Amino acid sequence: MNNNQPIGLFDSGVGGLTVANAIAKAMPNERLIYFGDTAHLPYGDKSADLIKGYAENITKFLLQNNCKAVVIACNTASSVAFEVVQDICADNAIAFNVIDPVVKKIVDQEYHKVGIIGTLGTIGSNVYYDKIKTAKPSIRAYSLATPLLAPMIESGFVHGQISELVIENYLVNDILEEIEAIVLGCTHYPLIKKQIEQLYLRLNKSVEVLATNEIAADFVKKVLEEKGLAATQKSTEPHHFFVSDYTASFEQTTRLFYGAEVKLERVSL
Amino acid sequence: MNNNQPIGLFDSGVGGLTVANAIAKAMPNERLIYFGDTAHLPYGDKSADLIKGYAENITKFLLQNNCKAVVIACNTASSVAFEVVQDICADNAIAFNVIDPVVKKIVDQEYHKVGIIGTLGTIGSNVYYDKIKTAKPSIRAYSLATPLLAPMIESGFVHGQISELVIENYLVNDILEEIEAIVLGCTHYPLIKKQIEQLYLRLNKSVEVLATNEIAADFVKKVLEEKGLAATQKSTEPHHFFVSDYTASFEQTTRLFYGAEVKLERVSL
Repeated sequence: MNNNQPIGLFDSGVGGLTVANAIAKAMPNERLIYFGDTAHLPYGDKSADLIKGYAENITKFLLQNNCKAVVIACNTASSVAFEVVQDICADNAIAFNVIDPVVKKIVDQEYHKVGIIGTLGTIGSNVYYDKIKTAKPSIRAYSLATPLLAPMIESGFVHGQISELVIENYLVNDILEEIEAIVLGCTHYPLIKKQIEQLYLRLNKSVEVLATNEIAADFVKKVLEEKGLAATQKSTEPHHFFVSDYTASFEQTTRLFYGAEVKLERVSL
Repeated sequence: MNNNQPIGLFDSGVGGLTVANAIAKAMPNERLIYFGDTAHLPYGDKSADLIKGYAENITKFLLQNNCKAVVIACNTASSVAFEVVQDICADNAIAFNVIDPVVKKIVDQEYHKVGIIGTLGTIGSNVYYDKIKTAKPSIRAYSLATPLLAPMIESGFVHGQISELVIENYLVNDILEEIEAIVLGCTHYPLIKKQIEQLYLRLNKSVEVLATNEIAADFVKKVLEEKGLAATQKSTEPHHFFVSDYTASFEQTTRLFYGAEVKLERVSL
């Protein structure tokens, strides 16, 4: 491994571009290779075995593209396929997921009571809950599935009364009373981070909103710098954004998640 | 073909169970074999070539299971894969889709101006618009993508303020002014048919709400009866509901779409 190699990321679709965007902001010298497995999205509805198989193929593809790191930019795949990705990376690349950095932050910040929101798949897997409890059993963690948030964001309902009502409908919930922090356990949710912060302001509650994309990006940066693998000068080669099935609507959505429209390249694995 | 053979249906997931339910109600003697291609859902985000391949495999599976009819209980697949299904059915089964019966009804009812709502995929394909215009060019047809409605229904927001606001947000739209009928161009939407009718009542507008599942079921019944292929006595064998990838959450959702929970059987094609 050397510091000129690109960072690979993958997700079931284009939602993981929020992670790519956070990494590009935190480490502007790095070249990114993103793989959106759009032929198989959404992972949240798939069985663990299927997802492990997809993750294996994608990780091999990213290693063939010389990546020094493979970031699972997807909560579902982070939850079920991290070991598979680590095994394939072996000594040739560093494997990251979007869950462990958040768990570490919760422990480091010494929170006592935290909430977790995510898709049905992520919440049903208990992955955040289990990892938090394993890291520090005294932390009280409460999970809530918020399945309408991701499609709401994808459909463009980010500002305005409907998104406010949906967010409030989910978050004003007895099980989330008196939390000090809330984990946004889905790659889409950073796009409504401000709206969630505004709800807590309106409710006059002090709740830290933890966006997994930013926390994961900071963690990747720290690890690569510690290992001397961070790029020291800006790459002259462009980022690449691959998808396993191309439709024009994915390309339009990239602007939403990446902050800029990007050219998608179709590749069959 | 004979009248004791089952009717096959398929969809990308469990949403097509609204069509199965309508057929079971319209033709209570019939035995159904349903295939939900949950490993590949949602079709709305997939390219036409992928969907044609899936439809081919599923149709072959339904024919192997001796079906006298194959109903594409999915708007996206109806739009791109009907010819494929017809070719494979050949003289061994009758192929149906959920779009043509609705187009026929619009022409028969002599509507002058109709609206169509559906997912991004269905509306983007222009399938309803093109088929209506081909059938009777003088009909004015206006399409509107309503991407949040299906996930809203799946997430259980069917009654109450949020679903009312989302429905109103979409349907109170200049392009849908003065329509005489609106096509619910998604298998999920029959579950909010009443809410849509109530909106038009509140707005004091007379708009016929056309649920594709009921219209398709009536059409299948009529054709099978005409051909002497309708079951004349109740089948002693049970319905079968197959999926290509099993998760418990699909099974829970069957109650929503079929009106009763059904046992899903996993099968690999």
